[in-house]
Amino acid sequence: MKVEKISELTTNRLSVYLRCLNELAAEGIRTISSEQFAVRFHLNSAQVRKDLAYFGEFGVRGVGYTIESLREHITKILGLDRQHRVCIIGAGRLGTALTDYYGFTRTNFKVAALFDADERKIGEKVGAVEIFDIKDFAAVVKKDKIDVAVIAVPAEFAQEVLELIVKAGIKAVMNFAPTPLKVSGDVKLKTIDLTTSLESLSYFLAQPKNGNGSGNLKPNGKSVRKQ
Amino acid sequence: MKVEKISELTTNRLSVYLRCLNELAAEGIRTISSEQFAVRFHLNSAQVRKDLAYFGEFGVRGVGYTIESLREHITKILGLDRQHRVCIIGAGRLGTALTDYYGFTRTNFKVAALFDADERKIGEKVGAVEIFDIKDFAAVVKKDKIDVAVIAVPAEFAQEVLELIVKAGIKAVMNFAPTPLKVSGDVKLKTIDLTTSLESLSYFLAQPKNGNGSGNLKPNGKSVRKQ
Repeated sequence: MKVEKISELTTNRLSVYLRCLNELAAEGIRTISSEQFAVRFHLNSAQVRKDLAYFGEFGVRGVGYTIESLREHITKILGLDRQHRVCIIGAGRLGTALTDYYGFTRTNFKVAALFDADERKIGEKVGAVEIFDIKDFAAVVKKDKIDVAVIAVPAEFAQEVLELIVKAGIKAVMNFAPTPLKVSGDVKLKTIDLTTSLESLSYFLAQPKNGNGSGNLKPNGKSVRKQ
Repeated sequence: MKVEKISELTTNRLSVYLRCLNELAAEGIRTISSEQFAVRFHLNSAQVRKDLAYFGEFGVRGVGYTIESLREHITKILGLDRQHRVCIIGAGRLGTALTDYYGFTRTNFKVAALFDADERKIGEKVGAVEIFDIKDFAAVVKKDKIDVAVIAVPAEFAQEVLELIVKAGIKAVMNFAPTPLKVSGDVKLKTIDLTTSLESLSYFLAQPKNGNGSGNLKPNGKSVRKQ
């Protein structure tokens, strides 16, 4: 394994591979070639080959990759070999829905606390997770050793909440408010912008010949035309 | 405006610009330069200049862009000048949270129906939206002229639900199940994979010097080293 830095697009693909490998392992499969892997999971085979080449030492000529070694290595690279403790700010429908999102539990993220400003909600529980007063944010974060925050408040409060998070020393933030937020360089902010995704669907419906990724686009997004 | 095809990354940025333009319009601002625009919304100014160059005719030298014209044009390109009718499959916490997601209503998407297989839920309402029996899917989709579907069911049912959606003639699908799905070329599938986003946060926490995008990465994701 080379010690090169990995781009976010690569880590995103490693995440996908990890879930695929987990599925294979659950079926008792022990080795797989990059071609079989790509076909089975509807992935781009050239991309898979290139990505797995990072993990050259785990590939055995004629046999393929050892699933267990690959899993362990990707798990470690992604920092998933230790548990992360998550808080969600905003105990509305989205925040409470996220509290028991299966993706969290599957990937070593444990939701440890919810926060809200509405005093009628404070002290209640969503499953096993308590809703705390946002005023106690820094104290609860410290006590519960929380290292990841999820912003699930309306857009107009998002920047304010982000500043509270950063002040409490949290370095990894997932934001569901569809608004650009400003953050300093040592904090990783990941915005999940459903509006943008909806609008790309809308674009596809409006101009289906343009948006379906059927292979008639050059990488720069310009159409290929005969002169 | 050139009639070139636009890549998904470009449409994603147009979505962001549109929300920024809406904010400016709400403040009564009528024109803005690409530089002012980039600074105000924490955007990359070179990218903004390049993207807005598509809309050359709306820029006025020395004045900047006319916000209203730019808004109208982007709205039309993204197909947001007409309403889309959305159904959500899965009336669990996530599905019901999405039903009143403000991003939908802000962007001309109207949630018209929820579907579930649990007969205790069928006939109930989430806000004004009725929960229908998944068995009646095709009929309700036709009657309610639904053109966008959102998959909010557990991963193991997602492919089955997708096939039902495609069979009903829906061409635009947003999927929240963290699993790769297979779909034919004339259907646009957008997977919102929170697990992947969580894992990229985890990667950042595990190796903060690698993942914070602080400018020491070359575009290919390899580190810049002196020989």
